[in-house]
Amino acid sequence: MIERISILGTGLLGTSVGLALRAAGFKGAIAGWNRSSEHGQLALKMGSIDSFAPDPIEAARASEVTVLAVPIYATLDLMEKLAQVLGPEQLVTDVGSTKRIISEAAARLYNTPERAAFLPGHPMAGKERGGAALADANLFRGAVWLFTDDPDAQRSPHSAALVKGWREWVATMGAKTLDLDPVRHDELVAWVSHLPQFTATALSALLEEEVGDAPELKDVGGRALREMTRLGASPYSMWRDIAHTNTEAVERALLALEQRLALVRENLRTPELRDEFEKANKFRRE
Amino acid sequence: MIERISILGTGLLGTSVGLALRAAGFKGAIAGWNRSSEHGQLALKMGSIDSFAPDPIEAARASEVTVLAVPIYATLDLMEKLAQVLGPEQLVTDVGSTKRIISEAAARLYNTPERAAFLPGHPMAGKERGGAALADANLFRGAVWLFTDDPDAQRSPHSAALVKGWREWVATMGAKTLDLDPVRHDELVAWVSHLPQFTATALSALLEEEVGDAPELKDVGGRALREMTRLGASPYSMWRDIAHTNTEAVERALLALEQRLALVRENLRTPELRDEFEKANKFRRE
Repeated sequence: MIERISILGTGLLGTSVGLALRAAGFKGAIAGWNRSSEHGQLALKMGSIDSFAPDPIEAARASEVTVLAVPIYATLDLMEKLAQVLGPEQLVTDVGSTKRIISEAAARLYNTPERAAFLPGHPMAGKERGGAALADANLFRGAVWLFTDDPDAQRSPHSAALVKGWREWVATMGAKTLDLDPVRHDELVAWVSHLPQFTATALSALLEEEVGDAPELKDVGGRALREMTRLGASPYSMWRDIAHTNTEAVERALLALEQRLALVRENLRTPELRDEFEKANKFRRE
Repeated sequence: MIERISILGTGLLGTSVGLALRAAGFKGAIAGWNRSSEHGQLALKMGSIDSFAPDPIEAARASEVTVLAVPIYATLDLMEKLAQVLGPEQLVTDVGSTKRIISEAAARLYNTPERAAFLPGHPMAGKERGGAALADANLFRGAVWLFTDDPDAQRSPHSAALVKGWREWVATMGAKTLDLDPVRHDELVAWVSHLPQFTATALSALLEEEVGDAPELKDVGGRALREMTRLGASPYSMWRDIAHTNTEAVERALLALEQRLALVRENLRTPELRDEFEKANKFRRE
């Protein structure tokens, strides 16, 4: 039923969505737009999109489904612009990492019988570096794709059907969908996604100061160190908007980890340390 | 030249040493001892050792090279006992994760012309779980194998040759050897090995409390969360002696990370965060 999709933002996620749609058998048109045309051309060359659109608004107007795959503030900006030009036969969805602010904008701008539908989405997939060149048709296979849809959305039957259709494509791309309240979403990802990222960044920055001048010493840490610092390669540009739009939840999570590390530090020689290891073991139990 | 090796402790590391020696072409005898005979029998069945010794002291007496692959305090205990029965035609080496306390014992008990030689070693390889069943002939391939030998050791020519011979086998097993002062070793591994472990343990224990009751939420974190908490599966038994014998260096490293996380937390909305990401990116630059 969905025949024309536009992907606004052909970085790692946007380009992967196009590739995954094609791999899942989507036969319709996929238009792509990107702020830097270089990444747009790359997405075109890789077969993720079949046309490069010069203007994001025009691309969305010509589509049934528009996927926003840009940072959070850019997503909010496009949401404002698109709400004015799209209608109830159209759906906009996104892949942003925080959902409260986006769900609020959606409730304000979309999801009435006269307006376009907006389905807030967040695929829990990514890499420590961005860009179309790293895109992968299998990026979402086995990953969880979160939605924070509004139970009070009043959609036209047509756009409600588009929401259902898009959810089906997400499942066909291999992702497991899970629905959450947007506030709960932001709290949850603060723990399971943002805290691990900021911890890896802090650990990597600290180690850069401590052993960064002796590259041979990085080898010493082996696989454990590589894994614990892999996310240290993530650029600020990918995380700035997340830090700005989920600040309180991330602050709480970071403070809790600081306190937890202090507990470990104060108990290196006491039996408390055993309890901490046992609790950690429990988290990792299959 | 080395024809009889005994491995005392056939857990993950000890059993892997036997398998790696065989894979590297060692044709001599390998005797193994283990506190629980079950893991000893498994090592025998896997071909890591070709005889299971009922007594560690007797096994060492009958060997040119004895590899201690037990926790730190058990290593110190065996060092005391073996020093009394071995002679200058014999070498003892170990695979323990902290080296200051072991190097001090070596200087006190070994490395005179009348006594056996002791070469303190530490292969930077392991897994988050121990046990012979996970042993791997390729565990040391590409890993760094640290030595903290005493430059003032006064060895018989025979035991000096054994030290050289053992270093050659370590290289043949595929490890890259690196020599460090024992105090510097313990400081370095506090940063690149012990800090990542205790961080993963603290993070895993914290997440067990926050999201542990909702197993489906663990999936949400994806690969990033799995990597950042993999070491959370490490048992207390593998880390207790390390926490006890490298306490001050680990305390310093943990405190530094707590401060670093606080810096990130206080700067989620300021340009400082960019600097922190850039420093982290530098650590991960190839």
